Amino acid sequence: MNTTIKKELAKYQGQINRVMKLFFDQKLQESGRWSADLKKVVQKTKRFSLQGGKRLRPILFLYGYQAIKSGNVQAVLKAAVSIEIMQSYFLVHDDIIDEDDQRRGSPSLHVVYEKMYRNNFGIKLSIIAGDLLENYALEVLAEADFPSVNINKALKHYYQITKQVNYGQVLDLLSERDEKITEKEIFNILKLKTATYTTTGPLQLGATLAGATENQLNQVAKIGQPLGIAFQLRDDVLGLFASQKEIGKPVGSDVKEGKKTLLIYRAWQASDQKQRKILKKVLGNKSASFKDIKKVRQIVKETGSLKYVNQKIDQHINKSLKMIANSSFRPSPKKFLADLAQFIGQHVL
Amino acid sequence: MNTTIKKELAKYQGQINRVMKLFFDQKLQESGRWSADLKKVVQKTKRFSLQGGKRLRPILFLYGYQAIKSGNVQAVLKAAVSIEIMQSYFLVHDDIIDEDDQRRGSPSLHVVYEKMYRNNFGIKLSIIAGDLLENYALEVLAEADFPSVNINKALKHYYQITKQVNYGQVLDLLSERDEKITEKEIFNILKLKTATYTTTGPLQLGATLAGATENQLNQVAKIGQPLGIAFQLRDDVLGLFASQKEIGKPVGSDVKEGKKTLLIYRAWQASDQKQRKILKKVLGNKSASFKDIKKVRQIVKETGSLKYVNQKIDQHINKSLKMIANSSFRPSPKKFLADLAQFIGQHVL
Repeated sequence: MNTTIKKELAKYQGQINRVMKLFFDQKLQESGRWSADLKKVVQKTKRFSLQGGKRLRPILFLYGYQAIKSGNVQAVLKAAVSIEIMQSYFLVHDDIIDEDDQRRGSPSLHVVYEKMYRNNFGIKLSIIAGDLLENYALEVLAEADFPSVNINKALKHYYQITKQVNYGQVLDLLSERDEKITEKEIFNILKLKTATYTTTGPLQLGATLAGATENQLNQVAKIGQPLGIAFQLRDDVLGLFASQKEIGKPVGSDVKEGKKTLLIYRAWQASDQKQRKILKKVLGNKSASFKDIKKVRQIVKETGSLKYVNQKIDQHINKSLKMIANSSFRPSPKKFLADLAQFIGQHVL
Repeated sequence: MNTTIKKELAKYQGQINRVMKLFFDQKLQESGRWSADLKKVVQKTKRFSLQGGKRLRPILFLYGYQAIKSGNVQAVLKAAVSIEIMQSYFLVHDDIIDEDDQRRGSPSLHVVYEKMYRNNFGIKLSIIAGDLLENYALEVLAEADFPSVNINKALKHYYQITKQVNYGQVLDLLSERDEKITEKEIFNILKLKTATYTTTGPLQLGATLAGATENQLNQVAKIGQPLGIAFQLRDDVLGLFASQKEIGKPVGSDVKEGKKTLLIYRAWQASDQKQRKILKKVLGNKSASFKDIKKVRQIVKETGSLKYVNQKIDQHINKSLKMIANSSFRPSPKKFLADLAQFIGQHVL
């Protein structure tokens, strides 16, 4: 990561983690009053939520607020962990659905519970634990210390975010078995599943608490959507080409799961007979070797798919940068958003 | 069911179903704008939510409102379907967790999706579909046509309800493997899992939208909690002793799943060697026969457990009736609640 962004993120990561820790400690007390066993289950949701993670979403929440209004950092951060806990909720259910055993370099929550309880309790408890994390995320936002009319508006954004992500989840899952998926459908999934809750959602929630106008919220969406799409496309590229250490999960897991990322889709479309034979063998093959993944890397390059996706990232970054420059937001969040966009844009392998 | 209650329920069931249908039709349009496949998935959540069900919860929501304030029935019913959709959310996840293939006499949602898509998509899609139903429930309440300060308070009740139910879900699941469960723990599960969202929650949500005071909300809780506990104990009794037609699911499913209901717990505690041997064989045995279930029925009777649970039901009904009589609520909802309590109390086999 470049130094400006690194510093800016580091400035708040510690504070965000402290606020999260405090919230989860209250939940430990609360659940412990019912039962020590319940508390143990909640304890693992705390650990899962606090381990790893760049805290990008709550930081965007804060900058969304500051785009409209200065000050009140502590109160905003307290509300902003809502989006990080929402992220935990999605990750827990996502890992069950994708049958991912690792997350951020540690075991997924369903693996943790299965070790503790056996009997398929891993998945069963993780369904409920994900649900609980969603309840917690809602609690944090509903109890935030802001005027009730702003909270109400924020809660309307909240359910729109979760709903759109879940729509995207359905489409993403169905895409695994869909032979005739189109590029437009892939972009729909990107919009629904990533842009909404990685960039647009956090920015809009923060801006809403600051009392943003409809016009300002539209500006936020126009900045956030291309930024979020570029972010996910970059993540897809890193997921295939970076090392396990860099990404905190096995390399090529999208490939093994048969996910139709833009990267894979374009490679598939442009592949010749020989290449397609290899892709057929490796895509969706859970026991694919690292050698197989390296073959896929090569095909993604040879077919021009990597180049195409990098161009798409550039286009979306430029769109976002233009909207940032044209926005009526305050200077410091404008600068942060522009730095972030440029970072995502320049992080080329 | 006795005639008064039947009439009173029938009066609103049709209206509630119409409001739900209308809401889901909007969601079909909304999801269809993204993709026809997504719409198909949402269509099944609609069907699942509309089939069967007594709509007791939204009716209690309405009476919770009317306990405080008259009029506004249409607006309240529009908000009240929130709790029915929340119920759908819980049922969908609950059926996955309990591995129940039937619900309200029809296939569970994960069975429906598995038939449509195969590949374990049944459970995967149902996790997301449950999440979506939760988002919908929140949407209905957040968009209700009431003063924003009342909506805000209602949303705080909302997350408390979902959170407590999920706490109860964890305890309920863990109880399956807990040899040393106590009667107190069983009552905790009853409070968290049932009373909250079957009686207290709906009543409080309605009362909150009507602008109830803290004192009035406390009265609601004191009526709702014993009523909800009695309701679930009655449900446990019916689940073992009624016919499949009466309960819309296989008889003795709690027994087959090894659920530690009060009925089973007391029978186990009081059983002699011979009885315990039978219980050991049948409890948690998914392929137990109807003959086995009948043996369990006999033991539940012989050990005095049925009598004990019926006494508990009476005690809780009487407690609730006393609180209803002492409350400062308006006459017509008081009468309905008293009728309902008496119905649950008298429905003896």
